[in-house]
Amino acid sequence: MSSQQGAASATQGRVTPRLVEELRRVVGEENVFVEPSEVLAWECDGYTLERHPPEAVVLPASTEEVSRVMRLLHQAQVPVIPRGAGTSLSGATVPVGGGVVVSLSRMNRILKIDLENRRAVVEAGVVNLWVTRAVENDGFFFAPDPSSQGACTIGGNVATNSGGPHTLKYGVTINHILGVEMVLADGTVVELGGDVEERPGYDLAGFVIGSEGTLGIVTKAVVRLTRAPQTYRTLLAVFDTIDAATRTVSEVIRQGIIPAAVEMMDNLIIQAVEEAFHFGFPKDAAAVLIIELDGLQAGIDELSRRVQAICAQEGAREIRAARDEKERQELWKARKRAFGAIGRISPSYVTQDGVVPRTKLPDILRIIAEVGRRHGIPIANVFHAGDGNIHPILLFDDQNPDEVERVLAASDEILTACIELGGSVTGEHGIGIEKVKHVAAMYTQDDLDVMTGLREVFDPGRRLNPGKIFPSSKGCIEVKRPRPKASA
Amino acid sequence: MSSQQGAASATQGRVTPRLVEELRRVVGEENVFVEPSEVLAWECDGYTLERHPPEAVVLPASTEEVSRVMRLLHQAQVPVIPRGAGTSLSGATVPVGGGVVVSLSRMNRILKIDLENRRAVVEAGVVNLWVTRAVENDGFFFAPDPSSQGACTIGGNVATNSGGPHTLKYGVTINHILGVEMVLADGTVVELGGDVEERPGYDLAGFVIGSEGTLGIVTKAVVRLTRAPQTYRTLLAVFDTIDAATRTVSEVIRQGIIPAAVEMMDNLIIQAVEEAFHFGFPKDAAAVLIIELDGLQAGIDELSRRVQAICAQEGAREIRAARDEKERQELWKARKRAFGAIGRISPSYVTQDGVVPRTKLPDILRIIAEVGRRHGIPIANVFHAGDGNIHPILLFDDQNPDEVERVLAASDEILTACIELGGSVTGEHGIGIEKVKHVAAMYTQDDLDVMTGLREVFDPGRRLNPGKIFPSSKGCIEVKRPRPKASA
Repeated sequence: MSSQQGAASATQGRVTPRLVEELRRVVGEENVFVEPSEVLAWECDGYTLERHPPEAVVLPASTEEVSRVMRLLHQAQVPVIPRGAGTSLSGATVPVGGGVVVSLSRMNRILKIDLENRRAVVEAGVVNLWVTRAVENDGFFFAPDPSSQGACTIGGNVATNSGGPHTLKYGVTINHILGVEMVLADGTVVELGGDVEERPGYDLAGFVIGSEGTLGIVTKAVVRLTRAPQTYRTLLAVFDTIDAATRTVSEVIRQGIIPAAVEMMDNLIIQAVEEAFHFGFPKDAAAVLIIELDGLQAGIDELSRRVQAICAQEGAREIRAARDEKERQELWKARKRAFGAIGRISPSYVTQDGVVPRTKLPDILRIIAEVGRRHGIPIANVFHAGDGNIHPILLFDDQNPDEVERVLAASDEILTACIELGGSVTGEHGIGIEKVKHVAAMYTQDDLDVMTGLREVFDPGRRLNPGKIFPSSKGCIEVKRPRPKASA
Repeated sequence: MSSQQGAASATQGRVTPRLVEELRRVVGEENVFVEPSEVLAWECDGYTLERHPPEAVVLPASTEEVSRVMRLLHQAQVPVIPRGAGTSLSGATVPVGGGVVVSLSRMNRILKIDLENRRAVVEAGVVNLWVTRAVENDGFFFAPDPSSQGACTIGGNVATNSGGPHTLKYGVTINHILGVEMVLADGTVVELGGDVEERPGYDLAGFVIGSEGTLGIVTKAVVRLTRAPQTYRTLLAVFDTIDAATRTVSEVIRQGIIPAAVEMMDNLIIQAVEEAFHFGFPKDAAAVLIIELDGLQAGIDELSRRVQAICAQEGAREIRAARDEKERQELWKARKRAFGAIGRISPSYVTQDGVVPRTKLPDILRIIAEVGRRHGIPIANVFHAGDGNIHPILLFDDQNPDEVERVLAASDEILTACIELGGSVTGEHGIGIEKVKHVAAMYTQDDLDVMTGLREVFDPGRRLNPGKIFPSSKGCIEVKRPRPKASA
C-alpha cells in the first residue's frame, strides 16, 4: 500500500520536498526518513494486523526539536503519529492516515534522580526497565512492569497507561507519573503536573495519561520511584480445574491479602511454556497460579503460609515456593516469556486484552473456551487474575485467510462478552485502531462528543494520531499479513 | 449584601418569580428557598471570610429532578452553585456571583453495596462516614477520611478530591472513586467511569474529581470499598524540637515503612488540645507525632518496634503505644478535634492548606514561625507530615480589622513560600475563591487557557460555580465578618 492511499482528506497537508528539507534542518539530515524502503520499518507495531507506511519519519533529540518539528507540521497541516518503541498491541502507532511519525527513540536520557523525594525525571524515549536499573542498587524500582518492559518506553507507558503483573498491588502507570512535559499540536510546550503530588486546578497530567498520543507528544515525565520491598515470597500453585484456581484468587483477596501479583496460566500456555523453557510445570494441570507476596521480612512467612492454606483448601494439588531469588526470577521469566513460547507452537497469534469484574472470571473463561471451540481457534490464557484483566491468546496461521477471519470474529465475541459481563475491552493495551468500534459500543454519543470536544481543546485540527481511539468516518481498514505479536 | 450586588454581568439571567414557580413544580414547594432570611443559611461555607447569599436554593431529590432543574436554569442562563454539606474551607460553595444553589443534601441514599467486588453506589449527598458505617461490620471501610468526615458528603469529596490523615497509605478521593453520574450545565445526564477499573478513552471520571463543581453536578458515585486492616498499632512520640520530629518522619519512610498515617501537632496545638480534652499530652513538648501502622497481625509488632526505635534514635523523649482500640480512638479523637480545641483559645481562626516536598518540612515550618512572629499572629500547626501537607492555623480576633488584614497577608506569604519550595497551595481543601490568585501564580497563561477550554467543553457558558478555581476579570472580593471555621 502506498502512502497516498493512507492519506485521509482533501484538507490534509502533504509532505513536500520543501517540508522534508525544513525538518532536516531541525533534526539533522540523518534523522529524517522518507524513502519507501526506509519508512517501512515504521509501518506497523506490535499489532501486526494493520500496516500503513508513514510519509516520513523524524527523530528529534530534544524537546526544542520536537517543538520546532511540530510547528513545521502544524504549518503544513500534516498528521503526526507519536511513537516510542512500537510495542503497542492495539495498533496505536500505525500511520493509518499517512502523515509523519515523530519517534522519541533518541530522547532516551534519565535527566534527574531524586531518591530523597522518590522521583526521577526522564525523557519519553527512556526504556521502562532502565529506570529500575538506574535505582535498584539504592533499593528502589519503577513499579509498572508490562511484559515488554525491556523494550517499551516511558512515553508509550504514559500514552497507554500501561499495567503489568504487579498492577494488582502497585497500580498502573497513572499512579506512578507525577507530571509530564508535552508538546501540543502547534508546537507549544506545556508542563502538566510536576514534582508535587497535589496541585490546584484540573488534573491535566492524569487526563493525558492513557490518551494514546491524541493530545500532544509527551517529551518528559516525572516518575515516582517506589521503595523495593525487603523480601518476596513467590508461590506456584497447581490446579486440576480453572474454577478452583479462580476461587483461590477470590478467597485470597477476600481475606484482605493483597499480593504483589496473582497471575494465571491455563493448560495450553503451561504446555507451551514447558516445551520452550523446561521450567518444570506439570503439563497436565488445568491451571497454575503464580502468587507473589512482597513487603517487610516481618510476618511474610506467616502470610505465605496463609496463602498456601487457601490454595490447599480450594483444591490445589501442589504448591511450590521459590526457594531463592534465582528460582523466583526463573518463574517470572517463564511467565513473561509465555508469549514468546506461544510463537513456537503456532505460526501466528493475537493477544487479546479485556477486563471483567474479578468475580466474573469463571464466566469469561468458559465463554472464551466456547468461542474457541465454535470457531475452531485454539485459545491459550495467561493473565492478571487479581485484576480481572484477561489476555486470551488466539492461535492461527496467518497464511490462512479463513483462520484470520475466524480469529477476528472470535476476538470480537470475547470483547463483547467482556462488556456484557460489566467489564471493558481493554485493561492495559489501549484502543489504538484495533478497538475503535468497541469504544463506540461502550459509550453514548454524548460521552463521545464530550471526549472529542476535550481532544479539540488540545488539537483543534485532530492531526495528532488520527484514526485512533475514536470512531470516525473512515470506516474499516482491510486486514493484512498477520504475524506473531510482541509480548503483553 | 443583597443578591443583586452578587450578580455578575449583563448577559447573566435572573431568578424571576416564574422561574421559581417552575423550580417548585419540579422539586416541590417546600424545597425551593428564595426569601432573604431563608437563603442566608447558604451565604457561606467553612471558609467564613466571604459571604454572598444566593438568589435561590433548590433541593432536588433525584438525578431526574437535578436534570430538570438544570434545564430550567440553562434556559434562564442563571449561574449554578452545586453544594454538599458546605464544609469547604476555601469558599468553593460561596455564591460570589449570585445564582442558584443546588444542594444535594436530600440525595443521601446508599443505593447499592457490592462487597464481593468491593464497590458501593451512593448518592452525592451521602455523608462520608455513613459509607464506612454501612460496611464496617463486614470488615470494610471507605478510605478517604477528612476531619469533617462526620459531616462532609461524597459529592463534596469528589469535587475537592479530599484527603485525610490516612491519605499517606490509602491515597486521596481519586483513588477511591470508580465512576460518577453527573448532570451537565444543560441538564444532560452522563456517566463517567463505572464499575470497572480500566476503561477505554479519556479518564473523564478522573478529570471531574477535584474540579470543584465547575464541570457539572455529580449526583452519584461508584466508590471503592477497602478491606479493613486486621489490626492497628498507634504510637504517640514526643519531641523537644520540631526538627527531630520531621527527621523521624523522613527516616521512617526512607526505611521503606509506609505507615497508615503520620500526623504532627506542634506545641501550640498540643496545649489547646490538652486544655480542651485532657488527653495527657505533655504541654511542654515542641511536637508530637501520631504514627499509625495497620495491616495483618503477622509482623506488625516487629514493625512497631522498628518505628519506635527510629523515634528513639532521632531523639523522641517519650513514646507511648495505644494499648487498645479505646486508647487508639481517643488519640484520633484528640487529633480530629484539634480544630475545635483551637476555637476555645481564639475568637477566630483560619486553617491554611499547603504542600511542600516532604524533605522541605523543616524549612516551611521555620518560615511559618517567622511569618507568624513578624505579623504578630499566633500560628498552630497540625498536619499530615507523611504527605508534606501542612495545615497552619492562624489565630486572630475577627472583630479586629487590622488582625484580619495581617492574617490574610501571613496566609499569602506562607502559600507563596510553599510554591517557592517546589510545593503547591492546596493539598486537599481546593481553590474555591480563596486561592484563585495563587492558581494564576502556579500556571502559565497557556496552561490556564487549556484548562478554561476544557471547562467550556462541559459548560460553554461558564455558569457552573462561577468565580471558582480560575482567575477572572471579577477581581478581588471584599473581606467580611470572619468567624471560626469548620475542621479540616
